[in-house]
This record gives sequence, structure tokens and C-alpha cells, in this order.
Amino acid sequence: MRYHKIPDETIKRMPTYLRGAMRLSEQDVKSISSKELAALLGVNPWQIRKDFSYFGEFGTPGVGYNIEKLLTHIRKILKLDVVRKAALVGAGNLGSALLAFPRFGTYSLEIAAAFDIDKRKIGKKKHGVLIENISAIKTLGQRSIDLGIISVPRGAAQEIADKLVEAGIRGILNLSPQHVTVPKNVKVITIDIAKGLARLPYYV
Amino acid sequence: MRYHKIPDETIKRMPTYLRGAMRLSEQDVKSISSKELAALLGVNPWQIRKDFSYFGEFGTPGVGYNIEKLLTHIRKILKLDVVRKAALVGAGNLGSALLAFPRFGTYSLEIAAAFDIDKRKIGKKKHGVLIENISAIKTLGQRSIDLGIISVPRGAAQEIADKLVEAGIRGILNLSPQHVTVPKNVKVITIDIAKGLARLPYYV
Repeated sequence: MRYHKIPDETIKRMPTYLRGAMRLSEQDVKSISSKELAALLGVNPWQIRKDFSYFGEFGTPGVGYNIEKLLTHIRKILKLDVVRKAALVGAGNLGSALLAFPRFGTYSLEIAAAFDIDKRKIGKKKHGVLIENISAIKTLGQRSIDLGIISVPRGAAQEIADKLVEAGIRGILNLSPQHVTVPKNVKVITIDIAKGLARLPYYV
Repeated sequence: MRYHKIPDETIKRMPTYLRGAMRLSEQDVKSISSKELAALLGVNPWQIRKDFSYFGEFGTPGVGYNIEKLLTHIRKILKLDVVRKAALVGAGNLGSALLAFPRFGTYSLEIAAAFDIDKRKIGKKKHGVLIENISAIKTLGQRSIDLGIISVPRGAAQEIADKLVEAGIRGILNLSPQHVTVPKNVKVITIDIAKGLARLPYYV
């Protein structure tokens, strides 16, 4: 089956649906209505129906969505039906926390390499992952690692993005506050925790 | 000046504009065009013009936006013109990383309290912040702290959200993968780093 023209906003919600389906599967739930799933995940039922419509009809009226089919579809769409390896650049406080993150495995994601410039860190393991010299980024292409995570200070982010792209990385999670410029065939997702907190007072 | 009816999506971009304006101010730049600002921040110029139009006209045709006015406006809108204090719940790997986060201060945000259930952590300081027993959350109302950060495992997230709301917290940054339910007058912003990485392979 081919999937096409799925909007970014739908893709953004997919990991939430996947996580929900995984939890329901663990609880041996066989099917769920869009209404129930919506309540569980905190999204709108119509949003779920709209999003799921992009990958064909597999809901049964009056019964709901089959959980196992849902899992299979979403994993295929997100290309998480195989383990995806990521390289972390920057093993500071946030980077180290990510190395210990139990949640990545849930999505078949694995941080398979970590890089830093700090000589006191290089050669040592953190949470089971060896910290390598940043110059070794160029070996990533030969190591079946195609995702990169930038967790370095703002000033170094663009340089690291360039190095990752040069090494053949096509997907980057940027956790630095710096907007990074990459070629069109590379996807960057930026998550800035400080900016998340910074827009809360507006609502308080 | 009163600002009203600003869409959530505009508020979402505001911290990025604020950060950009701060950097330009540090570099002694007096004014900037929407086009230049767009290139710097990686957003569309029309988006900037649209977003800024919500808080009145202060751009000058041919000259651009006055940086100092921009800073004043955005800080007022985001209510970041005074220091805003946040309480962190969960001083694990990610929580501890946040205590060391230099970026919060940039936005006049301060983690002024931290809570955990781990007796080995309680009573000790991490990055200058005392870790308190989780039972002390109820004292937050009297401590001028009105923001909360949830950095606990999924299973505990809803309970912590309830405790924060009970203590009078009206804005919550939820870093757990659990959707939390709160009263209508409480704002929750959820950031899930694992979900960010999980949607990257789709594009690769």
C-alpha cells in the first residue's frame, strides 16, 4: 500500500496515535471508536477520523478501529516498522538525559552513537553509549545511522547541522535554540523547551 | 495597550521573535525588515508581518521594525516583562538537565522550586535548586510561583497535574508522554521529545 499527500500536521499527531494504539494493544483491547480514542489522547474525534482517512478505510461502523491494523498502518507510514538509528551530537546535560530516555525504544528509535568535543567525555560511556570525538561524525554514513539529534549550544548548531548533512544524515531533531539552514532534501524538526515555557505566562 | 484575540499559532512563534530581537539588540541593531528577520529566524516574511499586525503598527516602510519597540511589545504580550517563576516536578535525568538550562533566564523564566519523591534527592541541591519533597507542592500558591513543569514518568503525570492545579498553578509545561486533563482555566503545553524524533523517519 502506498500513502501519499499526508499533511505535516497529520504526521505530527501520528506518534500520539501510535503510542495510544500500543498502550491499548498491551491492554488487549481489540478495537476502539474514534470518540474513545479521542478522549484517551486528548484530541478531537473528527480530527482522528480525518487523519486516519489518509491511509484508507479500516474502521468498522459501530465497532471502531482495529488496534492491530492501526499499529501496522501507523508504523508503516512513519517508517517505524524497523529500528531507526540516531546519532546524538552534544552529550551535555540535555544530551545525556536523552541517552537515558526510555521512550525512544517504544518507537523503535535507538541512539546508536554520541559525539562531543569535551575530551573528558570522549572515550567514556554514558548510559551505555560511547561518546566519540566529534570528528567521527563523518563515519555515520557507513553505520546505518540516518537520523541526527543536535543538542549543542546555539553557536555550534549550524556547524553541526552542516557536518551531519555532509555525513549523509537526512533527518535532524534540533534541540538547540538556533534555526539551522539545510538543503531541501533534509528535514529538520526543532524542539525548544525554553520557548515552550516562555509562551505559558501569556495564558496564565 | 491591550492586546486581544491573538491566535495560538502566533503566540507559538512569539518566543522565536523575542529571541531574535534580543540577539539583534545585543548586536546594537536598531531596526530590521520583515524580510531580514524572516531569513534570520527561518520563517516566512508574510508570516512575520501578519503576526506583528496583531499588536499594532510599529514598522516603518523602507526602514523596518524598531528592535527596542519589538522587544517591549513582545515581552508585554507574553507577560515576560517580569520574572516568571516555575516549579519543576521530577528531578530525574531530563528534569535535572532543565535545572541547568541556561536558556530559561533569557526569557525571564526561573525554575524557583523542584520536587521529587526520591528520598536520596530530597533535601539536596541540584544546579543550585533545592529538591523538596513532593508533598510540599501545596505550598506553591504562597510562593509567587505560577508555572509548573511536569517531568515525571507517564504513570504519575496526571496525579502531578492535579496536585499542581490544586496548588493554584495555572500554566503547565508537560514533558511527559501522557495527555493530562485539567480544568478549563489551566493551560497545558505538552512537549514530547521522543515523538519529535519519531516523526523524522517519515521524511527521510
